[in-house]
Amino acid sequence: MDMKNRLMEKLEKVINTSSNVDMEVLDQLLSGLEQKNAGNYTTYITSFMQTSMSVEDDILEMTIPITPFLNNSVDIVHGGFTATLADTAMGTLVNKKIDKNRVAVTAEMKLNYTAPGKGVQLRCKASILHLGSKTAVTEAKIYDEKNTLVAAASGSFYLIPR
Amino acid sequence: MDMKNRLMEKLEKVINTSSNVDMEVLDQLLSGLEQKNAGNYTTYITSFMQTSMSVEDDILEMTIPITPFLNNSVDIVHGGFTATLADTAMGTLVNKKIDKNRVAVTAEMKLNYTAPGKGVQLRCKASILHLGSKTAVTEAKIYDEKNTLVAAASGSFYLIPR
Amino acid sequence: MDMKNRLMEKLEKVINTSSNVDMEVLDQLLSGLEQKNAGNYTTYITSFMQTSMSVEDDILEMTIPITPFLNNSVDIVHGGFTATLADTAMGTLVNKKIDKNRVAVTAEMKLNYTAPGKGVQLRCKASILHLGSKTAVTEAKIYDEKNTLVAAASGSFYLIPR
Amino acid sequence: MDMKNRLMEKLEKVINTSSNVDMEVLDQLLSGLEQKNAGNYTTYITSFMQTSMSVEDDILEMTIPITPFLNNSVDIVHGGFTATLADTAMGTLVNKKIDKNRVAVTAEMKLNYTAPGKGVQLRCKASILHLGSKTAVTEAKIYDEKNTLVAAASGSFYLIPR
Repeated sequence: MDMKNRLMEKLEKVINTSSNVDMEVLDQLLSGLEQKNAGNYTTYITSFMQTSMSVEDDILEMTIPITPFLNNSVDIVHGGFTATLADTAMGTLVNKKIDKNRVAVTAEMKLNYTAPGKGVQLRCKASILHLGSKTAVTEAKIYDEKNTLVAAASGSFYLIPR
Repeated sequence: MDMKNRLMEKLEKVINTSSNVDMEVLDQLLSGLEQKNAGNYTTYITSFMQTSMSVEDDILEMTIPITPFLNNSVDIVHGGFTATLADTAMGTLVNKKIDKNRVAVTAEMKLNYTAPGKGVQLRCKASILHLGSKTAVTEAKIYDEKNTLVAAASGSFYLIPR
Repeated sequence: MDMKNRLMEKLEKVINTSSNVDMEVLDQLLSGLEQKNAGNYTTYITSFMQTSMSVEDDILEMTIPITPFLNNSVDIVHGGFTATLADTAMGTLVNKKIDKNRVAVTAEMKLNYTAPGKGVQLRCKASILHLGSKTAVTEAKIYDEKNTLVAAASGSFYLIPR
Repeated sequence: MDMKNRLMEKLEKVINTSSNVDMEVLDQLLSGLEQKNAGNYTTYITSFMQTSMSVEDDILEMTIPITPFLNNSVDIVHGGFTATLADTAMGTLVNKKIDKNRVAVTAEMKLNYTAPGKGVQLRCKASILHLGSKTAVTEAKIYDEKNTLVAAASGSFYLIPR
């Protein structure tokens, strides 16, 4: 049996032990992969997190819906997703500001979590504090849909040849 | 059409535009959900990351396989996954050390990335630096299978009533 | 011989092996102690650093002159002083916002250094990101007199009974 | 009147409004300057803090006495001094490991404070986590004389031409 059929069978089997919430999560993942295959995302995780993005006045905004996929064991957004959102937003902004033969890789990152991640969405606003020839320093604030600050992040990036 | 059938159709459609790597990732996600439904994981993300864990001498080790699911756009582990691994390992250890009517929520976390996350697996060793009545301070080191240090993390946690 | 005379003799002896810069530093320290004894400072280090302060719109600004006292071995401001300035500014602001039977003690702090500390002065702008019942989260930016960002800091504080 | 006489007069005046503790602090500062002029320190602040140092098995230990000079307004060691100690210890260790035409400057640093700095002394143990060609990542733990962990730090350094 080939891989496609095996996956179909596996899905069918998994679905039979799945709750509605599980199926929503699966649906989100499949939508993500569709979007990635359509060229709208370059990484699996951002496609699954359904990041959307805009840049204005040197501030990059990256938004994700809060869904069960993101939850930790006490049903708020896992701090790792908040970190992933901040890291992605800050790194993407740096990549937009440097020439295309270089790429930003995270050197370090810190987050302070100031409110539980819950509600409808997380919106991350990233900006550059310092852009040098070899490194960049950035910060980000993450808000929920009520503009409550959920987390504040800072990070630095090495700018290395691709 | 009900949700199950819709998911099956969606999967079939997605598979047709998927590479072998995409299908491996899907397979990993479905395996994760199976494991979660079997009660082996409490969160989606840890089931998808396929974390395994052991505790010895007050050190918690949490290991994940490095697979394409984890990759960022330059094909090394996305720093957000490294952060998720560290956060989960540190928080899980704290939860093991406090009474069951309380839970640890991340107050802040910092990571230094010291080598690209690539190879076979990431292994996170978390330990507690200080366990107070209301907060805990922890650290973690993350290694690849060659024992190269990939990241070093520190974090603090609020210990709140469940 | 009493302590006062001993100190006078010690100073005389030290002065004889001192450069003009050394004497400027001594002068700064003595001025600081004068100011502390006049009730203008509550700690030795802030009196020696000659901090001045204002609060407006929930932002605390704390300024220090850049003098040789602050220098590290490569003649820029020692990162420890930048950290001291940020810690003091953030903590002072928190103390202004909580009732007087509690005091803020630093739980953690992170600084990114973005430019060498040199020139005439460092000006730290601290603000509160989150003020809870038991903890506060703050941030600070430190600029030189040309408004170059020298460092960005974040910190959290435990609010404990005095 | 020349600077030396002016300083002598200023000291005499300051002493008259000084407590015994103030005079102890002055004595410590004058001793520090003596030591600096004797070539035992390269910066004012480390001479005033009376740092002593040893290196063994790639771990640098830097110790300072806890004196009133270090206190914050609630009579424990000001977090800024703890930061200064960590920064100095980590940076000094890096400088020992790189060739002499380069120098380490702090890129970023984070500290978690785990116990009040009080007692007899603070002992900082610094080690290198990663030494690259352009940057180094380090960590440090700070203990009091009872081996209570007072703070844990991590930092990174740019290695730049002198």
